[in-house]
Amino acid sequence: MNLRVPGPTPLPPQVREASAADMINHRGPEFRELLGAVVADLRHVFQTDNEVVIVTGSGTGGLEAAIVNLISPGDRVIAATCGVFGERFAAIAQAFGAEVINLAAPWGQAIDPLELEAALDRTPDAQLVLVTHNETSTGVTNDLRSLAEVVRARRRGGRPLLVVDGISSVGAIPLPTDTWECDVVVTASQKAWMAPPGLAMLSVSARAWEAMERATCPRFYWDLRAARRYAERGQTPWTPAVGVLYGLRVALQMMRTEGLEAIYARHRRVGQRMREGARALGLELFASPAYASDTVTALRVPSGANGEALVTRLREQGVVVAGGQGKLKGQVLRVGHMGYVDVGDIEQVLEALGRALALG
Amino acid sequence: MNLRVPGPTPLPPQVREASAADMINHRGPEFRELLGAVVADLRHVFQTDNEVVIVTGSGTGGLEAAIVNLISPGDRVIAATCGVFGERFAAIAQAFGAEVINLAAPWGQAIDPLELEAALDRTPDAQLVLVTHNETSTGVTNDLRSLAEVVRARRRGGRPLLVVDGISSVGAIPLPTDTWECDVVVTASQKAWMAPPGLAMLSVSARAWEAMERATCPRFYWDLRAARRYAERGQTPWTPAVGVLYGLRVALQMMRTEGLEAIYARHRRVGQRMREGARALGLELFASPAYASDTVTALRVPSGANGEALVTRLREQGVVVAGGQGKLKGQVLRVGHMGYVDVGDIEQVLEALGRALALG
Repeated sequence: MNLRVPGPTPLPPQVREASAADMINHRGPEFRELLGAVVADLRHVFQTDNEVVIVTGSGTGGLEAAIVNLISPGDRVIAATCGVFGERFAAIAQAFGAEVINLAAPWGQAIDPLELEAALDRTPDAQLVLVTHNETSTGVTNDLRSLAEVVRARRRGGRPLLVVDGISSVGAIPLPTDTWECDVVVTASQKAWMAPPGLAMLSVSARAWEAMERATCPRFYWDLRAARRYAERGQTPWTPAVGVLYGLRVALQMMRTEGLEAIYARHRRVGQRMREGARALGLELFASPAYASDTVTALRVPSGANGEALVTRLREQGVVVAGGQGKLKGQVLRVGHMGYVDVGDIEQVLEALGRALALG
Repeated sequence: MNLRVPGPTPLPPQVREASAADMINHRGPEFRELLGAVVADLRHVFQTDNEVVIVTGSGTGGLEAAIVNLISPGDRVIAATCGVFGERFAAIAQAFGAEVINLAAPWGQAIDPLELEAALDRTPDAQLVLVTHNETSTGVTNDLRSLAEVVRARRRGGRPLLVVDGISSVGAIPLPTDTWECDVVVTASQKAWMAPPGLAMLSVSARAWEAMERATCPRFYWDLRAARRYAERGQTPWTPAVGVLYGLRVALQMMRTEGLEAIYARHRRVGQRMREGARALGLELFASPAYASDTVTALRVPSGANGEALVTRLREQGVVVAGGQGKLKGQVLRVGHMGYVDVGDIEQVLEALGRALALG
């Protein structure tokens, strides 16, 4: 099968093999070495000198970890959203008692930095700004550099913090964490990282560590301060998904070998070929072309066609794509192209798409 | 290495091989089948007609899921503790705003049902009783049958609920969930289940589902109501640790083939051999003999010996055991014997222990 959903992504054979190793003591020397190697490589890909913390959970778990460590009930939080995952991030903040100011761009569009500027001016006491770098539900990559610049320019006394959902971007699309002054960046093992699902990874700035000391939201499992303490002795507070870490270590070695610039260029090539090929088939992109993502492409289901039937027909040809989420159910097809992917995989998708469309 | 920590436990070759399979769409038909098969087998081992929910996280994550779904801030919770993990369970309840009544037995002893009875009489408004079935830090198996009977006899209007940490017991030591009327039982994939870490599994009674509707503790990632909704279509709300599920499916098939009674008998044999052999070496059990666990044995470090040096010396001989936790640091050795283990593994441990002790 050519697995082309926006995660879990396919595993390279070396990663699969590594994932099959037997267990070790997560409080012993082999684990210390494993965790150290993975964190060092993660920091390289995050382009950060900040600490990177690994928690066992999904990407959503990583988003929850960011929220519960940084807010106190009643805190004002600006959530810049343009799709399902932005809304989820906002919903998590709301669930834990934040007063969420929702800055919503139309789905398919990117968040406008000028609107974020205005929202920050209206909300000078905002504690956090939540941004989804790459919105997987619509195939939009937000202009995080500009959004981060807006936050930076309006930051007073260390507020607000910029908290980025980089789940489907880090490791595939440039996100220089430190240059853009992102306080927390969240990602997950089953996306650009070519590893199985089970781990979320978060970079945490000095400002964010300080904020955690003041935040009163109840937390235990996701308490990043505990993770930081245990990291000093090469451990995690709770038993981690060791097998996923085995896979991630090997995947990171592959990423080091390929090099960040080459990885970004490959994702650009793949994204471009997907978009060109889809247009050549008469399909329309859901995302505004200027912000079309290089990791996920959302295609409008042609009028008269049935979205779910198209997904099924593609599967019959060995290509697994995702349908639409939330209010886009039945209206878009989503093709994932991050991690272990090259242009040849996309050619297969396009051929299958052509046949599926021809069948009506 | 003979990995004899109390989790992660060794993986059978079949489980390792299964864990190396490539990824699938977690919203597709293969996943639905995978989840269905795993849940059916889990219910068999839990001996329950209740729903069993799978979350991605460690055992501690599973305990947190139980707490945040069942309490409202200010709720009174009786935590019956006799070691590190009981205290952790109590600490989670406290972190999320419960008023915790700590019913602590001396470490090495089991919780006295009569004391639980008295605590329940003093606290007629207790919403939950938390019990650690098998206390991994001291090697004690509590008499859950009697404790559950005490709770059952004092339950009025559906309260209190009995919430059991069965992390290092279910699948190795009898825990008939329904017969003993346990409302929530929590366990984790890397213990008796012979699978890699990354998943926690919880059985949830009808009473517990009802209680969730009233509980006001904030929750999102761990919200078991979301898990229940998604389970209806063969999915999990967030991307699960698919590779761990692959392994768990195969491990459960092995457990079905062996049969529950045979599994329990094997753990009894293994536990007994470990205790006899240790005594023959002149070592003293930390646990009260009547409650010594068949999944973990805690041995007192002989006076004059150095606990950490013993752990290192055992490792040099290919046997990996754990030291003491919390106030038992340096005072005990802990040998795990649950899951993929038989008497031969214990003979190896005993031989290595003999040599390590002889070296002084």
